[in-house]
Amino acid sequence: MDVTNVLHMNRGIGKSSYANNSLLQQKAISLTKHIREEAITSLYRSMLPRCLSIAELGCASGPNAFIAVSEIIKIVEKLCREMNHKSPDYKVLMNDLPGNDFNNIFKSISSFKEKLNNELESQIGPCYFYGVPASFYGRIFPNQTLHFVHSSYGLQWLSKVPEGIENNKGNIYTSNTSPLNVLKAYYEQFQRDFSLFLKCRAEELVEGGCMVLTIVGRRSENRSSKECCYIWEVMAKALNDMVLQGIIKEEKFDTFNIPIYNPSPSEVKLEVLKEGSFTINRLEVSEVKFESEKCESFNDSGYNVSQCMRAVVEPMLVNHFGKAIMEELFHRYQEILSDHMSKEETKVINVTILLTKKPYERF
Amino acid sequence: MDVTNVLHMNRGIGKSSYANNSLLQQKAISLTKHIREEAITSLYRSMLPRCLSIAELGCASGPNAFIAVSEIIKIVEKLCREMNHKSPDYKVLMNDLPGNDFNNIFKSISSFKEKLNNELESQIGPCYFYGVPASFYGRIFPNQTLHFVHSSYGLQWLSKVPEGIENNKGNIYTSNTSPLNVLKAYYEQFQRDFSLFLKCRAEELVEGGCMVLTIVGRRSENRSSKECCYIWEVMAKALNDMVLQGIIKEEKFDTFNIPIYNPSPSEVKLEVLKEGSFTINRLEVSEVKFESEKCESFNDSGYNVSQCMRAVVEPMLVNHFGKAIMEELFHRYQEILSDHMSKEETKVINVTILLTKKPYERF
Repeated sequence: MDVTNVLHMNRGIGKSSYANNSLLQQKAISLTKHIREEAITSLYRSMLPRCLSIAELGCASGPNAFIAVSEIIKIVEKLCREMNHKSPDYKVLMNDLPGNDFNNIFKSISSFKEKLNNELESQIGPCYFYGVPASFYGRIFPNQTLHFVHSSYGLQWLSKVPEGIENNKGNIYTSNTSPLNVLKAYYEQFQRDFSLFLKCRAEELVEGGCMVLTIVGRRSENRSSKECCYIWEVMAKALNDMVLQGIIKEEKFDTFNIPIYNPSPSEVKLEVLKEGSFTINRLEVSEVKFESEKCESFNDSGYNVSQCMRAVVEPMLVNHFGKAIMEELFHRYQEILSDHMSKEETKVINVTILLTKKPYERF
Repeated sequence: MDVTNVLHMNRGIGKSSYANNSLLQQKAISLTKHIREEAITSLYRSMLPRCLSIAELGCASGPNAFIAVSEIIKIVEKLCREMNHKSPDYKVLMNDLPGNDFNNIFKSISSFKEKLNNELESQIGPCYFYGVPASFYGRIFPNQTLHFVHSSYGLQWLSKVPEGIENNKGNIYTSNTSPLNVLKAYYEQFQRDFSLFLKCRAEELVEGGCMVLTIVGRRSENRSSKECCYIWEVMAKALNDMVLQGIIKEEKFDTFNIPIYNPSPSEVKLEVLKEGSFTINRLEVSEVKFESEKCESFNDSGYNVSQCMRAVVEPMLVNHFGKAIMEELFHRYQEILSDHMSKEETKVINVTILLTKKPYERF
């Protein structure tokens, strides 16, 4: 699977769109507000940049895209008033893969700016918006041009499905029935990808620049822990049922694996230490319950989770299985989920890390 | 009419899309190749930037978006080989209004890069692509960050319909039946817009940075000359016929005017001299025949021109008149055009100017 060209959240603003099914991701962003506050306050006070570059990596589309950027600008504007400084210019770099719905983001920039000016009751500094359509597992900005990097729910996506996992039968991700080589292959792909990510950003950030990264991960050191794998096991079960009923061919099912890895805090920490360009200022774990305030019954809750997952993985499933089976698949998925959620709480574990770029070694 | 949010070329890749109906614009770009060659060669030799910033303003979507950028990179790569230099990094800034189909452009970046590497038979320097969704009649880049600005068929669009032209009855643009105040209002809007454009770019370009601008204009000093107005007179006639038949309400027709101005070379020159930040290196006039190689009969030719115009103005017409009448309108438009084109050559006049940013005055 060519992840760079296939992976994108559901476009548009329809009922299965990411824009309309990303409350979970919104909650996760709000949980890490204090970390962004700490980071940008310290960065702005120490650097006082005349033009502040903020990159939102894996911005997707819809209302979540601007949450962190908006917070950061508000904090800087407040600091400027306190310090009696002129506002800096802002360069806002919205990044995602080329298939992302950038048209949707771009159309909301003017209302975003208007809202910000209203909330601050004053005109903010000039604000330049750019869309950056490229994989963050590679260089996407010139050398030393970024001050602040934010990414939430992006880095659990791998650059590709790990190689050598043909024996992951009956699964579409790591599970407690996955052979050991599969768990190892997934982990090693994460190591390569995350390490490359850190190396690229280290080249792009100025000295003292920082990153706040939230990754969908796990608490346990067990790589097939239910806390991260269950939601995919349900998807595998729904697909498998359709294989048994002859709706999907077995070889189609056997060759589908998702390019995701949910790291533990220590796995994240290890890669940062190995790569060596960043100081770790914070490493926190939080959790979001996988249900929406809108739910009134467990059945609705299954629907909401199903819609949320659909908004995220449908393009990838369509690419492999075709469009025709999607309604059926997500109907089955929802039913299994609803049943599970009536018995047990379903939640998502977030690993958040605050990193600061170390000074360059000078020879 | 809120031009910033309404104006965009027809999106997507369907039969009325800009991507599929922009051969005329492509011909215009190819006519000015020698000017870009001269400009970038001189710029690169004198500056040797380590990261070359190229902005394509009013890039639209489809195959034309990358023509100039591709040429410029090829020339720089050739110069690097001749001079035995390492390739620079490239920062490519694709600008258009927020309603433009950026998704379409972004999806073709990888094939664009691949084609370029194949044609050059070598790997070009790192190439960073950004989408810049904003009106170029305002600041869109930080201070002194651009080297080369290109724009073709963008600057004839005004930032808004001029005010005070309610008496332009029976017309949708300047015509030989337009009252004098209408011609004056259009010209003054052009002066304000073009002057603001120059001022903004002057702040964004580095010293010695340059711009190649091609504007749909006219040769004549007569502001209602047929050479630029005829194509809109035909549109007005088609609309007027529909008013007479009760399909469109008269007040709807009377309140529609298009936000375009087609300047003469001397009008362009005058604004540049008045604004004062740029040296004029070249000012040329060229023309493109308004017909496609695909035409086999005059009737087809009318169809092609109609499709070309439809790709450009349909969103604006839909915004004012509604979607329902579009098929009918463009059918009538095509019929009148076909009749005209069987008798007379229809062509578009291009005014192209090469400008270099003067050194800053130092106090």
